[in-house]
Amino acid sequence: MDNQFTLTAILQRVDVLRYTPSGTPILDVMLQHESWQEENHIPCQIKFELPARIIGQNAQAWQHEQGECVTVTGFLAQRSQRSNRPMLRIQHITKYKG
Amino acid sequence: MDNQFTLTAILQRVDVLRYTPSGTPILDVMLQHESWQEENHIPCQIKFELPARIIGQNAQAWQHEQGECVTVTGFLAQRSQRSNRPMLRIQHITKYKG
Repeated sequence: MDNQFTLTAILQRVDVLRYTPSGTPILDVMLQHESWQEENHIPCQIKFELPARIIGQNAQAWQHEQGECVTVTGFLAQRSQRSNRPMLRIQHITKYKG
Repeated sequence: MDNQFTLTAILQRVDVLRYTPSGTPILDVMLQHESWQEENHIPCQIKFELPARIIGQNAQAWQHEQGECVTVTGFLAQRSQRSNRPMLRIQHITKYKG
């Protein structure tokens, strides 16, 4: 069951690092994406925000990188047990190299 | 600027086919996804709904396929000019082959 997303975006907001009860670091961020994509042979301007989460060592490494442009890969998931609106769970994150 | 998403999902809802003023067919659908993914070496159950849109010839081809399990690729985009919540613009769609 495929669920893989690759996105270049700005770390528009980086929340304060927090930890699970078992001590795993969690970093919630807001991604802001802008690009031109082609749909049915017509270019269209894309602009949206997407909440995302980093868990584990990467969470500590990126906690002070607000404003950075990054390329992330991961999977979409429900935001919480109460909300089935999607958020991105980030598995890999690197600085964007234009 | 990367923006590419691949998802296996059920066509939970398929709206009535409509057309742009210039005659391009548009099909709005609701995708329902369920899978297990691995995050920080721990399996987690994923379940969410994502609105999506098919434009062009594929819109006509899929208008009667509600309930079908499909694999789609495309890009995320804002839902409308007023809402920057994301929806999936489907560029390729095929029946899921388990």
